[in-house]
Amino acid sequence: MAAKQVNIAIIGAGGVGKAFLAQLQALSSRRPSPKLSLCYISTSKKALYNDDFSPLAYETAIQELATTSKQAKTLSQVVDYLGAVSKSTNAKVVLVDNTSSQDVADFYPTFLKNSVSIVTPNKKAFSGSYKLWQDIFAAAESSGAKVYHESSVGAGLPVISTLKDLVETGDEVTKIEGVFSGTMSFLFNSFAPVEGAGGQWSAEVKKAKDLGYTEPDPRDDLNGLDVARKLTILARLAGLPVESPTAFPVQSLIPKELESVASGDEFLQRLPEFDSQMEEIKAAAEREGKVVRFVGSIDMASKAVKVGLETFEKSHPIAGLKGSDNIISFYTKRYGAKPLIIQGAGAGGDVTAMGVTGDLNKVISQIA
Amino acid sequence: MAAKQVNIAIIGAGGVGKAFLAQLQALSSRRPSPKLSLCYISTSKKALYNDDFSPLAYETAIQELATTSKQAKTLSQVVDYLGAVSKSTNAKVVLVDNTSSQDVADFYPTFLKNSVSIVTPNKKAFSGSYKLWQDIFAAAESSGAKVYHESSVGAGLPVISTLKDLVETGDEVTKIEGVFSGTMSFLFNSFAPVEGAGGQWSAEVKKAKDLGYTEPDPRDDLNGLDVARKLTILARLAGLPVESPTAFPVQSLIPKELESVASGDEFLQRLPEFDSQMEEIKAAAEREGKVVRFVGSIDMASKAVKVGLETFEKSHPIAGLKGSDNIISFYTKRYGAKPLIIQGAGAGGDVTAMGVTGDLNKVISQIA
Repeated sequence: MAAKQVNIAIIGAGGVGKAFLAQLQALSSRRPSPKLSLCYISTSKKALYNDDFSPLAYETAIQELATTSKQAKTLSQVVDYLGAVSKSTNAKVVLVDNTSSQDVADFYPTFLKNSVSIVTPNKKAFSGSYKLWQDIFAAAESSGAKVYHESSVGAGLPVISTLKDLVETGDEVTKIEGVFSGTMSFLFNSFAPVEGAGGQWSAEVKKAKDLGYTEPDPRDDLNGLDVARKLTILARLAGLPVESPTAFPVQSLIPKELESVASGDEFLQRLPEFDSQMEEIKAAAEREGKVVRFVGSIDMASKAVKVGLETFEKSHPIAGLKGSDNIISFYTKRYGAKPLIIQGAGAGGDVTAMGVTGDLNKVISQIA
Repeated sequence: MAAKQVNIAIIGAGGVGKAFLAQLQALSSRRPSPKLSLCYISTSKKALYNDDFSPLAYETAIQELATTSKQAKTLSQVVDYLGAVSKSTNAKVVLVDNTSSQDVADFYPTFLKNSVSIVTPNKKAFSGSYKLWQDIFAAAESSGAKVYHESSVGAGLPVISTLKDLVETGDEVTKIEGVFSGTMSFLFNSFAPVEGAGGQWSAEVKKAKDLGYTEPDPRDDLNGLDVARKLTILARLAGLPVESPTAFPVQSLIPKELESVASGDEFLQRLPEFDSQMEEIKAAAEREGKVVRFVGSIDMASKAVKVGLETFEKSHPIAGLKGSDNIISFYTKRYGAKPLIIQGAGAGGDVTAMGVTGDLNKVISQIA
């Protein structure tokens, strides 16, 4: 028989957390059973919860969180609290981790062992050490709790679910290739467009920052680590036991001389000194009738994972990408020479939250 | 606690059925629990099953089916038999309908009412009368049985699951547009390529038939009904209660004069008489710097569903499609001006079976 209630706990109430909460309301009204009961929500500092385990109101949670004087529980305390909620309500618990915190990620095995399912866009858990990856899935296997992380790659685009379907139905992935960063997509689509000359590299980086497309310090995008983390996740799902996101070649677009300057602002001020280097890369591609893009790829036969600049024919789907879209191509035995392609916005609060809410929906269908 | 066994019944043992059976073996070895027990498999004429409800061997099922003298059960008898299997094994049953039969589709509500879940690539159930659609989902709702049909649109491409995720997480679909037929894709990519002149229309149709890309009578592709059925399914999932696949404009590419010729062969013989008409359509698009494609679209605001020829800029993703690939673009409130795009092979036994096996995997996770 279907359970009457599932308890939802949320850590993280930033852009994704707020969008998720709005979608949770939509899901809840579309899905009358089981009742989705909000039992805990926290920022890194503060938390809302009721000591008698009665549910919180979705509608006012964000506001109340801003004014509450209740401190956030430690992660150990959250584990205990959720165990008590589960017991008191005789219902299962799903933890929604809307942070990008390594500390929370490190606690996933403990949550899962305690039968708390997890849905999250947090890349850290799945792209950190291979041991953490193994611990997470072993804990889920042993307790029967679920762990879903669609939005850890390509936000709400169906990337993880598609790769899992390919593998679980017995297809053989031969290569995965794509543009996995909205920031890098925007930068190269503007710097080296298929038609027209494009802008100066440093000017495009500055524009991207002004538009809010980069991290506060753009070097956190340009070092390639974000893409390397996503590649690590996909490679592991495809069957390669990649040790960490630094275990394969990752090209950084930060000039050596600017790696240690103190601030993002100073970095941006000095970046024009290096425009000629990027201009030469663009021109070299142009001489072959191609364009340069920042991509990640996984070649399963040679077990080669790499992240960095590659050139593409102008008719290639990766060359023709627009705006800050992601594109991910799965080459498999079943699909042959023409890959299965997924394309669209790969960043932003709403589309990231969509992956989380979609995952939550799937978990509820399985545990309730 | 997780169930120890799920019973699988299969109707249909053609190209998709055979590919599915191979994938079922792969899934079964990857997924030790629950045990996937094959209890029934049939063609339209013959069937394999054991009167003591003991499981059939996957490996030899197709061979044994060819030599057995056992007749296929009627659909009523199958319902009774599966009820007895479920009772005897104390385990649930999933029916895999690998046919394109309207008769089997009409029986879905009965199966579902009897707690038999359904996974299928069969378009007929979901694109027939709106009443059948309602009956199917009402029956599933009341019994708790599941019904999944990913491969009814775009074969194994994640089209249905993505649309459901968008809707269930509260996004608002504004438009769906794409190339939904591998046959039509091949014909127009060859007849009116982005680069080069392309072939004569009638010659391309003949080539497609020789390559096995069309139905035995190519008119069954050229009438647009296959695309209309897929659009009907997507429109209903997006929230439009489309009455039937003939309730909206569908452009047929069969010249009026050839609608009633006796055979596909005669049709192909006479088709060159009409090449000049298609040539004029191609030339008109070319004069605007565009190419012509056979597409389906759903505009949610105006509730307009249509299937037929449209022209596209050569840089448009629909224009640049290769081979017999499908492409489906979802325009939504959340994704804004740049759609979520899914592209790849939309026909073929292996990729169609992949959608079926992936669905089965999801159903098992929910019912076991």
